[in-house]
Amino acid sequence: MNGAEFIINSAVKAGIEVCFANPGTTEMALVNALDRVPGMRSVLGLFEGVCTGAADGYARMAGKPAMTVLHLGPGFGNGIANLHNARRAKSMMFNVVGEHASWHLPFDPLLAMDIEALAGSVSAWHRTVKTPDALAGYTNEAIINALNGRIATLIAPSDFQWAEVTDRHTVFPNKEKFPVEEPLIAQAADILKKSKKCALLLGGQALSDKGLMLAARIQSRIHCDLFYDTFPARLEQGTGYPHLHRIPYLPKMALEAMKPYDAVVCIGTRTPVAFFGYSGLPSLFVHDGQKTLVIHQTDEAIVDALLMIAQALHAPETPDPEMLSPLHRPGMPAGKLDGNKAGAVLAAMQPEHAIIIEEAITNSLAYHAVINGCPKFTLLALTGGSIGQGPASATGAAIACPNRPVIDFQADGSAMYTIQSLWTQARENLNVTTLICSNRSYDILKMEMFRSGNTAPGANANRMTDLSGIHWLKLGESLGVASVSVSTCEGMVRELEKALTTAGPNLIELAL
Amino acid sequence: MNGAEFIINSAVKAGIEVCFANPGTTEMALVNALDRVPGMRSVLGLFEGVCTGAADGYARMAGKPAMTVLHLGPGFGNGIANLHNARRAKSMMFNVVGEHASWHLPFDPLLAMDIEALAGSVSAWHRTVKTPDALAGYTNEAIINALNGRIATLIAPSDFQWAEVTDRHTVFPNKEKFPVEEPLIAQAADILKKSKKCALLLGGQALSDKGLMLAARIQSRIHCDLFYDTFPARLEQGTGYPHLHRIPYLPKMALEAMKPYDAVVCIGTRTPVAFFGYSGLPSLFVHDGQKTLVIHQTDEAIVDALLMIAQALHAPETPDPEMLSPLHRPGMPAGKLDGNKAGAVLAAMQPEHAIIIEEAITNSLAYHAVINGCPKFTLLALTGGSIGQGPASATGAAIACPNRPVIDFQADGSAMYTIQSLWTQARENLNVTTLICSNRSYDILKMEMFRSGNTAPGANANRMTDLSGIHWLKLGESLGVASVSVSTCEGMVRELEKALTTAGPNLIELAL
Repeated sequence: MNGAEFIINSAVKAGIEVCFANPGTTEMALVNALDRVPGMRSVLGLFEGVCTGAADGYARMAGKPAMTVLHLGPGFGNGIANLHNARRAKSMMFNVVGEHASWHLPFDPLLAMDIEALAGSVSAWHRTVKTPDALAGYTNEAIINALNGRIATLIAPSDFQWAEVTDRHTVFPNKEKFPVEEPLIAQAADILKKSKKCALLLGGQALSDKGLMLAARIQSRIHCDLFYDTFPARLEQGTGYPHLHRIPYLPKMALEAMKPYDAVVCIGTRTPVAFFGYSGLPSLFVHDGQKTLVIHQTDEAIVDALLMIAQALHAPETPDPEMLSPLHRPGMPAGKLDGNKAGAVLAAMQPEHAIIIEEAITNSLAYHAVINGCPKFTLLALTGGSIGQGPASATGAAIACPNRPVIDFQADGSAMYTIQSLWTQARENLNVTTLICSNRSYDILKMEMFRSGNTAPGANANRMTDLSGIHWLKLGESLGVASVSVSTCEGMVRELEKALTTAGPNLIELAL
Repeated sequence: MNGAEFIINSAVKAGIEVCFANPGTTEMALVNALDRVPGMRSVLGLFEGVCTGAADGYARMAGKPAMTVLHLGPGFGNGIANLHNARRAKSMMFNVVGEHASWHLPFDPLLAMDIEALAGSVSAWHRTVKTPDALAGYTNEAIINALNGRIATLIAPSDFQWAEVTDRHTVFPNKEKFPVEEPLIAQAADILKKSKKCALLLGGQALSDKGLMLAARIQSRIHCDLFYDTFPARLEQGTGYPHLHRIPYLPKMALEAMKPYDAVVCIGTRTPVAFFGYSGLPSLFVHDGQKTLVIHQTDEAIVDALLMIAQALHAPETPDPEMLSPLHRPGMPAGKLDGNKAGAVLAAMQPEHAIIIEEAITNSLAYHAVINGCPKFTLLALTGGSIGQGPASATGAAIACPNRPVIDFQADGSAMYTIQSLWTQARENLNVTTLICSNRSYDILKMEMFRSGNTAPGANANRMTDLSGIHWLKLGESLGVASVSVSTCEGMVRELEKALTTAGPNLIELAL
């Protein structure tokens, strides 16, 4: 088999099933291999940010990596923003980037650029194949890294993709599991026991079903409040889980939220850091008077850590039912839609096992406060703050979980970054409903402008935040997605119900 | 004044008039400064690839840099593909990227990434301001680099943008001019005189009005053929200019085109390099039997070089009129459109002084052969091969030259990369006509697939090249651009005529 066939074959052997791709001439051997090697579903994105965002959403839901095939430096460059989000989500991914033929590259053809510099900015592992003999080994190294929860980027010159490779019959090892640092467990238990009021901040796998039920057991023994990161990679939520608070986005609100606690224990995440630095406000949301402990281990180990803390505290084997959120949907709002009402309608209607992609920015602030009592669902957030994650991530999540409804609760300005995702949703007939919060404005920037003292922005500043002029109904339809526009809660209820009972993608413009 | 005001003020003093921006919170001081400092037009792009592509198109047409304001690493990352094209075009640009506040960055906030690694991949000059005192000096250094034809990227932490800066009253020096290497002139003249058949390959400023008229004078004295790079940054073309041949894209055709010459003299460009390396074909389009000389100097100097060669050859003061292309439009084709016919209709109709952005990929192969006799016009091509340059570059060119019609002859797959450009064209009411060559396919990949021996592509490979399902009329309209779809030459004639006589942007889908 040739190098490209070896790459695809190894990925399939490692259990990788989906390849999000936008290939070019330097990836032609890989395209051919996708036909010759059975077992890999190829999904085209019309822009690489779609591919990398979809691979991220896929990994978060499937719990295993997808593959991407990207064209040279510019193709990888287009994927960087969503790779940054994936890196912050600690998502796993196996990227293969073509490079010019090794003998052609020294002539600096027009498309040549420093792919390694780009790859290094977002990959935990990246390597360029420098000799045909190195391809097999590097491929396996990349895949093992991806399987172990990392972003791995293999840069493969086209001539080495075509060259013959001897199959190594690699057996991919199970995922590494790092031992829990036991002294930290004792410290955590000690803090929980001795503090008057403790905040347990959960992230990563601590927000999984297992993690949350362990947190509920701890909560059944020791009085503490549970928080989750402002932008969790993946959060299980709803009735039957313990009540969770989101760390607020705005520093003043976050500091206020953390203030009552004399201790903060972070499990599977770090001490909370402000999204931006604001003059006069601290970077961290904990203060010197608070006892702080961080257990920030790799994903699976953190569930063990929670179990060990529960055991150290002699927590009951099953959580006290009082600790678990009862079924409680918010009341259905009526009349003209706004961001808060849109969030309430969504929380009132979202089906059990829905996957909610949350990139509604200013319009989701209220939503997070009313979701504890919804039927169980999964929430994926904008982990790296690089907008344009929602539509792409929804695409990948829907491919990972074809039987679960995916709802992308989406800001309009952010949606425009990877709007090409709608086309892939249509082509693959994915069950994604996109709720566009159409306020025709970068509202978060207006807020920041106000905060920065520019209370009467002039013409240039106003032009930087005004997004008017996008016709969402036509835009959705132009890319093959059934689309509709509503401006009332009643309209949103009607159309969301319709969308959720229809196969394939839908777009609902919420004209706010 | 604060640092941000200093940056904008310095740019204005240096003659920079337009800022293509998509700012965020870390650029808020710059947004405020755009209001306070008069003289800078702010243009919003809904995706950073629009901003950097527009700045490139602007620079190619205005002959001076535009400024961009980009949000942190992800914002810069989104701009990389078109920055790569700008780098290959040797365009000038002044990028300002915000960074987290210097005291906040060590906490690794979610949006933090290695901006320098990204900036370094496409910038000739880049620097991060590390102390407030360094801001003024680095700003001026960046602007001087931009004025001298380079891509300069200034990374400015938000706290230093807000900090007070003492104005330095910088007077920006004139553009550097490098002396021509005289021995090369004598060699070039000697080769031209002694060769039986010489190809003069022109690039950069050698393709300007002055450069071409000097080439025509040389041609009036010495028999030689004139070629231009396959993807010129900016090419003046049409009647009154000497007859020019394009170096073909396909290696076999390019090698064939160069074969008859015993000498190749490259002026303002390098020895032609194949776009991709193909097994069994050379990387360079010249061979050992050909005498080759390269004079690849900075832009202005190359016109001096041509003048000195003309003088050394005792070329006539004005070109022989026989050397200049007479007015000759191709015959108007009829019936069902295809790529070749679309190119012919365009060449038959394009107005004098039109700016043609050529990103039609497989559909423009015939166009380049029929444009020598058109009324004088300017052509901008896809210099770095990173698709998605057309719509963005057209936006910037139209801002640089509001009184010239801009026509973006555009492939459909490539257009999808920076489709958000249409929104900016609508908002700024720019005279851009976008001709979408809608063949619903990455045709160039199909061609490459065939060349690679995959003559019967399977399901996966076919899915990688099939783009069906984009409704261009709705897509254009959704972003505020008057749109229409035609499938015949007659329809294209009618709609192009209408578009060219209507103010503001238009989109014509050429259903091929």
